[in-house]
Amino acid sequence: MAVYTEVSDESLKAFVAQYDIGRIHSCKGIAEGVENSNYHLQTNQGSYILTLYEKRVNPEDLPFFLGLMDYLAENQFPCPIPIHGIDGEVLRNLSDKPAALISFLPGLWPKKINPSHCYAVGAAAAKMHIAAEGFSLTRENRLNKTAWKELFCELENQTDQIKVGLADTIKEELEFLDKNWPKNLPLGIIHADLFPDNVFFLQNKLSGIIDFYFACNESFAYELAICLNAWCFETNGRFNTTKASYLVQGYRSIRPLNTNEINALPTLARGSSLRFLLTRLFDILNQSEGALVNPKDPIEYLRKLQFHQNISKVEAYGISGG
Amino acid sequence: MAVYTEVSDESLKAFVAQYDIGRIHSCKGIAEGVENSNYHLQTNQGSYILTLYEKRVNPEDLPFFLGLMDYLAENQFPCPIPIHGIDGEVLRNLSDKPAALISFLPGLWPKKINPSHCYAVGAAAAKMHIAAEGFSLTRENRLNKTAWKELFCELENQTDQIKVGLADTIKEELEFLDKNWPKNLPLGIIHADLFPDNVFFLQNKLSGIIDFYFACNESFAYELAICLNAWCFETNGRFNTTKASYLVQGYRSIRPLNTNEINALPTLARGSSLRFLLTRLFDILNQSEGALVNPKDPIEYLRKLQFHQNISKVEAYGISGG
Repeated sequence: MAVYTEVSDESLKAFVAQYDIGRIHSCKGIAEGVENSNYHLQTNQGSYILTLYEKRVNPEDLPFFLGLMDYLAENQFPCPIPIHGIDGEVLRNLSDKPAALISFLPGLWPKKINPSHCYAVGAAAAKMHIAAEGFSLTRENRLNKTAWKELFCELENQTDQIKVGLADTIKEELEFLDKNWPKNLPLGIIHADLFPDNVFFLQNKLSGIIDFYFACNESFAYELAICLNAWCFETNGRFNTTKASYLVQGYRSIRPLNTNEINALPTLARGSSLRFLLTRLFDILNQSEGALVNPKDPIEYLRKLQFHQNISKVEAYGISGG
Repeated sequence: MAVYTEVSDESLKAFVAQYDIGRIHSCKGIAEGVENSNYHLQTNQGSYILTLYEKRVNPEDLPFFLGLMDYLAENQFPCPIPIHGIDGEVLRNLSDKPAALISFLPGLWPKKINPSHCYAVGAAAAKMHIAAEGFSLTRENRLNKTAWKELFCELENQTDQIKVGLADTIKEELEFLDKNWPKNLPLGIIHADLFPDNVFFLQNKLSGIIDFYFACNESFAYELAICLNAWCFETNGRFNTTKASYLVQGYRSIRPLNTNEINALPTLARGSSLRFLLTRLFDILNQSEGALVNPKDPIEYLRKLQFHQNISKVEAYGISGG
């Protein structure tokens, strides 16, 4: 749940008047999402999401994120579409925050994952990778290996208060990844945050993907590594090889994976585990008094990291080789 | 913001199948409201609010609350209408909580109050008082003078940690109200929580009132006393007599107030201040670790109480006598 920026009625009215979307019918804060303030805005013409970008989003990145959604939608990829104002602009200010209006994407995110969800998200990831080809802007992955090291430097003295020995585990993992990080993988734009709450389904079909605010230029296979972590572990911590197999089959049904990409998965999955372990550690150690957000458990990602450390061949994931 | 009860896709689907409202389109948690979990549910037929009643609502009261909304809507009062299932029922279980589906009421609650809002809410309160006449169920005010004493007994030893001397102030006020509480006032069903976030406006017209979960049988004038506190103080603490005058004029445009009712307002306003002071003290002193709710400031209501303690005649509110 986000810490909300309140919007006065006058400024909301003035904001909406800059679009050809009709008269305001209702506007309610949405409880989901932790990065930004999201409102469900209804007018006599339709439903929209109004997003106010809070401090975790760099305003300089917004043209990339909004432009990407525009580009993906043009290429028939199901995602929210930024609404252009009468002046053509998609980005403006509201309550002293950068703000944009996007179309409302119907669907529910799956609370209980089954293998067919995994197949669908794999296929959608591949479709997104292809649909984004040719997009003119680029964005570096600000949460790449270099960033993990910087983040760890900041947190090193505090991590052992979360779990004794954690600093050593992270240090060794950073060294391993430095030596073994896969090279020469096919690159493009990835979503980089394909968790279940960003993937909507309607009548058992994937209806769309939301929240492109971590999208960046990265190796395509890294997206799959994030998905292995986000979709294929059970709540009891057990890895489900059927789900992993469906995820990769779904992806391959749209875009082939070369041997390099397949073989890189265990190392990429270790990197992805470390990325979420570190950002969750940061969140829990920098939790502000009175914030209306329950930080997510970092230890979940330590366990995932330890699982991947014991994988030597992708077959152990239930995935057939390249 | 409420602590949310999560609803699984399967149980939501099974819940919705018990109504003739079409297929689920989306379902998002609403960030407003602290008592219950509210979801904005959209189907291919319309918009609804799905409410899961959390522990602060007594399930035995739900037939009163839902029946009242039904009755008010039948009498053309603008409020959400409980949706009846195919089986005729309005109340059922979802994720182990009592749950109901109500119609979606369009409108925005006013963040910045002007006198015309006060006139409109006064008129709507009077309309509600009249529209509820003849409703067959009754509900005692569980936050009446007797309840304040009980609440204070529980909190007495802790209040001074909020402000030194607060326990004495409350004790003296309880004694004053015991001796001076107005008698023989016209009674009926009141909303009892008519704060701005429960009153919606569309194009400067009041579009409806929500959240009847404190409604009870009480003196009509007590509703106005609550509104004086909720609508007529500026954020700097100053009482705005223009707003109070508009509020009461709005009320009188629909239902006359007798001399007793008018003269009772300062004492009722003291009681209403004490009621919110005590419940806010309770909330702040019983705040659970990790709850996603920012408790409201009790001292705001101590100041309002002190303001009313200095009022001897209603004319000081900007209200003309009875």
